[in-house]
Amino acid sequence: MTSTHADLARLSLNTATTKQWTLREAVDGAVRAGLPAIGVWRDRVQETGVAESARIIADAGLRVSSLCRGGFLTADDDAAATAALDDNRRAIVEAATLGTRELIMVVGGLPAASAPGGPALPGTAGRDVVGARRRVADRIGELAPFAAGHGVRLVLEPLHPIFAADRAVISTLGQALDIAEPYPADVVGVVVDTYHVWWDPDLQRQIARAGAAGRIASYQVCDWTLPLASDALLSRGHVGDGYIDFATITRWVAETGYTGDVEVEIFNQSIWDTPGDETVATLADRYVRLVLPHL
Amino acid sequence: MTSTHADLARLSLNTATTKQWTLREAVDGAVRAGLPAIGVWRDRVQETGVAESARIIADAGLRVSSLCRGGFLTADDDAAATAALDDNRRAIVEAATLGTRELIMVVGGLPAASAPGGPALPGTAGRDVVGARRRVADRIGELAPFAAGHGVRLVLEPLHPIFAADRAVISTLGQALDIAEPYPADVVGVVVDTYHVWWDPDLQRQIARAGAAGRIASYQVCDWTLPLASDALLSRGHVGDGYIDFATITRWVAETGYTGDVEVEIFNQSIWDTPGDETVATLADRYVRLVLPHL
Repeated sequence: MTSTHADLARLSLNTATTKQWTLREAVDGAVRAGLPAIGVWRDRVQETGVAESARIIADAGLRVSSLCRGGFLTADDDAAATAALDDNRRAIVEAATLGTRELIMVVGGLPAASAPGGPALPGTAGRDVVGARRRVADRIGELAPFAAGHGVRLVLEPLHPIFAADRAVISTLGQALDIAEPYPADVVGVVVDTYHVWWDPDLQRQIARAGAAGRIASYQVCDWTLPLASDALLSRGHVGDGYIDFATITRWVAETGYTGDVEVEIFNQSIWDTPGDETVATLADRYVRLVLPHL
Repeated sequence: MTSTHADLARLSLNTATTKQWTLREAVDGAVRAGLPAIGVWRDRVQETGVAESARIIADAGLRVSSLCRGGFLTADDDAAATAALDDNRRAIVEAATLGTRELIMVVGGLPAASAPGGPALPGTAGRDVVGARRRVADRIGELAPFAAGHGVRLVLEPLHPIFAADRAVISTLGQALDIAEPYPADVVGVVVDTYHVWWDPDLQRQIARAGAAGRIASYQVCDWTLPLASDALLSRGHVGDGYIDFATITRWVAETGYTGDVEVEIFNQSIWDTPGDETVATLADRYVRLVLPHL
């Protein structure tokens, strides 16, 4: 790899990509590789402590591109809904403490998909995706003032429809933007994650719409690989190992004037089994060859 | 089960659901269970012979609700494209011979996904989903006059985005309708298959649009179950075993005035390992309890 630090000036390591590393190890690994930013997951932050994590990251001179994740707002009973809102308020405070304004929101799936033993038969209990989406929209409304008060943006993440039942009832960028629309752009934004949105026939238009509204809070890259892993969650690959046309999607994002970080977030057991420095070298190389030229 | 033949007046057995049965066995099984219609796959028809299949089905007094499938129109080289068009013309003739006007089209995935050894690195060769979609639209245009001349409708099937790379670059009903729009409704139509479209936030509007245009050629039902099967293709379940809200989607279809058949098409190894009569009894029971009341 012959990339320079200038090449990597917008590249961020998401801690999920190097799951085997503690927060400090991930920070050190990012610094060794010349990356200026890190995207952090709450579990990594909480095991180290929020204040200590903030100190480690600041001392290393890294930006925090995003905190992952709030969300899970689809519960159809009051107790679970209240607990979820409380947890999201804690996540907002954590984001502010870490010095990032972007809190990624994975909004949650159908209540039936989290019911013990799976869905009851017959009927529709817990399968009402229209209602689940409405609850997400309502609860974003409840959280928005608190987020705004802490200088944090709620960043809606559309997830690939493979996860619509059990993880996120927001499946497209257009749908995320519809939910975001009532709020200022610095209070509710969206992520463009290639893995989740590459297939969308409306993608170019919705990226342009997101950019024009100033709502693109994060551009995340990883590839759609086949065959799917036995745990579909872990089916992501390094940029270039799968089927996504990064040149085209990156150009669409760049054409909106997006100047933020590009985060690499990969869930993949074989990548987690690879030494972290090797993983970071690979993702930096792929970024420089396949993403940066179009950015 | 206490359903009557009247209850089953719109229920069709797709031969993929009872994969262990020959065409004749599937016809006999449908008749035994009181179903008036069958949806047939070309492999089942071809092993029996097209003319003989047509005779068996007609003698049994069954309707053919659809023939599955034409398509695979995304090739980016001339030889493969020509071969695909030829095969689609054969499928159109088969549909006409069988006495159905609905030829289901699974339009094909990215060329890279059918390349030996997977996609080359780096670059975008074979990953251009926008281009692949354009080729589908162009080739539907080439086939439309031939289909019209045979009284057969090309029925575009949007597939779940999980299959966008390797099987169908049409991922939403809206996208299918955009491709269908230049042609008369009796020449190019669409399928509403719950498995593929249930997650779509724009589904209600697009079903209404499809119905208003007279383009709903088939309503197919099966359920989205979790965890996904190791072969994602086989991850479908009986209506009611998963997460789809059949009441709502069926109502949306019915509200358009759709009066056609409801096909049950399930790919699932454990269902294929079940005696066919038992499978047909289960699907009829689920249809009567969970679909018919909303139809």
